[in-house]
Amino acid sequence: MAFPNIITDLINYFERLPGVGSKTAQRLVFYMLNFPDRELEEFGSLVGALKKRTQLCSTCKNISEEETCKICSDTSRNHRQILVVTSPLDVVALERTDYKGVYHVLHGLIDPLSYIGPDDIYLASLVERLEKLVFEVKNDPDSFVEVVLATNAGMEGESTAHYIRDLIREKGFDESVVRITRIGRGLPVGGDIEYADDNTLSRALDSRR
Amino acid sequence: MAFPNIITDLINYFERLPGVGSKTAQRLVFYMLNFPDRELEEFGSLVGALKKRTQLCSTCKNISEEETCKICSDTSRNHRQILVVTSPLDVVALERTDYKGVYHVLHGLIDPLSYIGPDDIYLASLVERLEKLVFEVKNDPDSFVEVVLATNAGMEGESTAHYIRDLIREKGFDESVVRITRIGRGLPVGGDIEYADDNTLSRALDSRR
Repeated sequence: MAFPNIITDLINYFERLPGVGSKTAQRLVFYMLNFPDRELEEFGSLVGALKKRTQLCSTCKNISEEETCKICSDTSRNHRQILVVTSPLDVVALERTDYKGVYHVLHGLIDPLSYIGPDDIYLASLVERLEKLVFEVKNDPDSFVEVVLATNAGMEGESTAHYIRDLIREKGFDESVVRITRIGRGLPVGGDIEYADDNTLSRALDSRR
Repeated sequence: MAFPNIITDLINYFERLPGVGSKTAQRLVFYMLNFPDRELEEFGSLVGALKKRTQLCSTCKNISEEETCKICSDTSRNHRQILVVTSPLDVVALERTDYKGVYHVLHGLIDPLSYIGPDDIYLASLVERLEKLVFEVKNDPDSFVEVVLATNAGMEGESTAHYIRDLIREKGFDESVVRITRIGRGLPVGGDIEYADDNTLSRALDSRR
């Protein structure tokens, strides 16, 4: 069955989105035919302008409309506590907590099997940030910088976290000045021991206190 | 957490699509940031032009780029056999069979609870089509027109089918000239009796032959 070309083309774009198969893409596009014309135009112009109207924050590499994102411009936050995350969506999730430090968004994880090396994610800019912060902190003996590694627990997340730890140590920052921590692992709040997977249980035991 | 405005606006549009919740909408929009700029522009312009570049076929009301759709322009098909369906997606599914008649797309079902009456779906145009066809067939005693009702088996589908049957009968077309049939119901091919629902089983028994 030949759809009108514009519908076929749109279905092809929707199919490229994660979790959208060909049936879903068809349903979405046909559903959009019910939108008023004016709204379709607005929807379309937002899609077209998405990348032109956003950029990566020059400091933390989060998606931002300005050169410096809202979080990095917020002087009430602790700019010496940097939470390193994989993607901007992690920032969204963590912003629902009462975390008051800042972020560094890697935009990916080191994954040699997919040809993603350390230079393909925002690591160099993290080291640059640390160098600047260490310079600021230098004259204040009580100050320190904390890097909280919050990559996911999968293989790529773990090896990226190790790589970052080694990289920072190699740069020769004093361990008492640049402190590296890892986000806590254990049973989720409300999680039953009975239903937890083995990895989570081992981690929960390891991080007992 | 405040996203850049354009991202919030896009997420709102995606959330209005069927089956897309707020988490999915976020994931889709952030994923789109990986598209090259040129492709986002094309995607956006397709969305914006979707309704301007499509229309309803003047005959069968299916979505079409031309005034008359490809199926209605196809002279090799039987234009005296009209399969009445609810939506353009039904046409897509039925075109995968070897059906060689034409269609009539209602764009909805009569549903008083949602304030959708007979005038809100494309019924008047169906009657007009029948009037024209009956006029054509008049001089040929062996010819007839077949209307195959293929609305879904739910309450609205059944009552719409009944309504159409009554409407056609009320118009006084000769029963041997305008023949009304209903799409067959029964066990799906490959379906086990054990797992079929009660309605399907009753229908399968009723339509035994």
